[in-house]
Amino acid sequence: MMGPRLDPAVAEGRRAVLAALTDLEPGARVEVALSGGADSLALAACLAFLAPREGWLAGAVVVDHALQDGSAVVAEKAAAQARELGLEAEVVRVDVGTDGGPEAAARDARYGVLRTRQAEAVLLGHTLDDQAETVLLGLGRGSGPRSLAGMPERDGLVRRPFLGLRRADTERICTASGLTWWTDPHNTDPSFRRSRLRHEALPLLEDVLGGGVAEALARTAEQLRQDTDLLDALAADVAEPHDVETLAALPPALRSRVLRRLALDAGADASELAAVHLRELDRLITDWHGQQRVELPGRVSAARVDGALRFATS
Amino acid sequence: MMGPRLDPAVAEGRRAVLAALTDLEPGARVEVALSGGADSLALAACLAFLAPREGWLAGAVVVDHALQDGSAVVAEKAAAQARELGLEAEVVRVDVGTDGGPEAAARDARYGVLRTRQAEAVLLGHTLDDQAETVLLGLGRGSGPRSLAGMPERDGLVRRPFLGLRRADTERICTASGLTWWTDPHNTDPSFRRSRLRHEALPLLEDVLGGGVAEALARTAEQLRQDTDLLDALAADVAEPHDVETLAALPPALRSRVLRRLALDAGADASELAAVHLRELDRLITDWHGQQRVELPGRVSAARVDGALRFATS
Repeated sequence: MMGPRLDPAVAEGRRAVLAALTDLEPGARVEVALSGGADSLALAACLAFLAPREGWLAGAVVVDHALQDGSAVVAEKAAAQARELGLEAEVVRVDVGTDGGPEAAARDARYGVLRTRQAEAVLLGHTLDDQAETVLLGLGRGSGPRSLAGMPERDGLVRRPFLGLRRADTERICTASGLTWWTDPHNTDPSFRRSRLRHEALPLLEDVLGGGVAEALARTAEQLRQDTDLLDALAADVAEPHDVETLAALPPALRSRVLRRLALDAGADASELAAVHLRELDRLITDWHGQQRVELPGRVSAARVDGALRFATS
Repeated sequence: MMGPRLDPAVAEGRRAVLAALTDLEPGARVEVALSGGADSLALAACLAFLAPREGWLAGAVVVDHALQDGSAVVAEKAAAQARELGLEAEVVRVDVGTDGGPEAAARDARYGVLRTRQAEAVLLGHTLDDQAETVLLGLGRGSGPRSLAGMPERDGLVRRPFLGLRRADTERICTASGLTWWTDPHNTDPSFRRSRLRHEALPLLEDVLGGGVAEALARTAEQLRQDTDLLDALAADVAEPHDVETLAALPPALRSRVLRRLALDAGADASELAAVHLRELDRLITDWHGQQRVELPGRVSAARVDGALRFATS
């Protein structure tokens, strides 16, 4: 007699976590960044299953942003669920600033905690749906291929095993594991861009384009990440990048990256440096007719002097 | 006394056409692909202004797809408008097939005519808005960076001077020139994907993402085009591309392009070759455990034999 069949979503979730952690030795410490939502709770369940088999020390860290009434209760409930799954669990309360809007400030505070955990890996529950939303947000910013490349599977301590799973899969994992997840009221608050993308824009695009849009966006993000990784590496390898002759000989895809890097190295403000500034810099190389210096955000300017780009701060 | 001021849209349109044709000598023949819509009619007006000053022989070609009742009347009216502007004009009637759906079939038939004109350049009226729609359509297909890169400014005979202008600018040019344009009923028919993108999806994205989406999509397309041009050229330069050791040493962004090219050179069907096939090919290199051959669309298969990829057709 066979036992009850394992839900395919559970099998897929465990496989994804295992595949993301193949390099870990027994004794390694792994933490889940747990919100209590379906995605991170499913991740906690998969990790709790695998950890004793693989000999990992597994825990959960719950970041309480203290932005909503009752957030401490939500955080403590998530921590209690993690402990029931057999994970150590800790609640860390953070002060969220206001820089860049509420979503960005909360994210900065959260990553500030996660990046400094004493662990070999910190797992985030982002799914394919989150990736698709991130790509669309990047499109709206128009800040180029890098912003379309979405979230990487690995970034320092942080790993995202569920980028290939749908959000609905994580709910199935929770249901199959007898776990009740918390639904962030912000996720349905239409004043939040990501929420409106999720509930209005993506469903309409799916309808207009005939389905498969979320998968297509996620696949595109992966390919763009490979492309931009290589192009960024090639741009970083350019010798004598201030030299006008060197710059003029580069293909546009590399020249734009070298110019961006020179501007940032000179102290230009990364969040303000836009395509229009890079175009003006490019004209110092490719459309030279004795222009004045180019002003860049962050009180940095660039000028062409004796066949080289020179940057100055004021 | 100054004369009446030139509408800024007219000045911008003329500047755009001139910038797209800087390489043409006096005596060169230039044609506008004219539909009678605002975009191509504006283009015809700008070309008609510039041609006598630059010494170009300017004409208009109107492709009658004969798909709608009265299409011949629309085509003849457009040709008459071109003649009033001082352009030679010819109506070419084409038979539209059914391959790939009505839009694709009409496009194929149209480009079949335009690519074989006896002219140095054939100008198309695509605007920034068309480019944004093309990028979103490419996103929906998920066929990677190349499909997001949109329409190029130049492709063989064909040039698109208006990719930096908004559709509304072309309407202003027509109005300022006393020209009445034709509105394609398909452009407001919600059963057409592009029309639904234009009238439903893009306005919603503009609202959700806070405006500037069309410009952002067009800017992204331009950068992706530069990126993919360089990566395609680097991939084409790879020596001994069938060799497994060569392939294994390539960065993923190049390996995926080399594998795609090998598959197409071996006769695989370009329209059916998908990411899933390239991933299986990639596994022959990066995850080798004695796999069987990989079947590709177009009755082509690939196998790893003696340290090399071998393609065969059945």
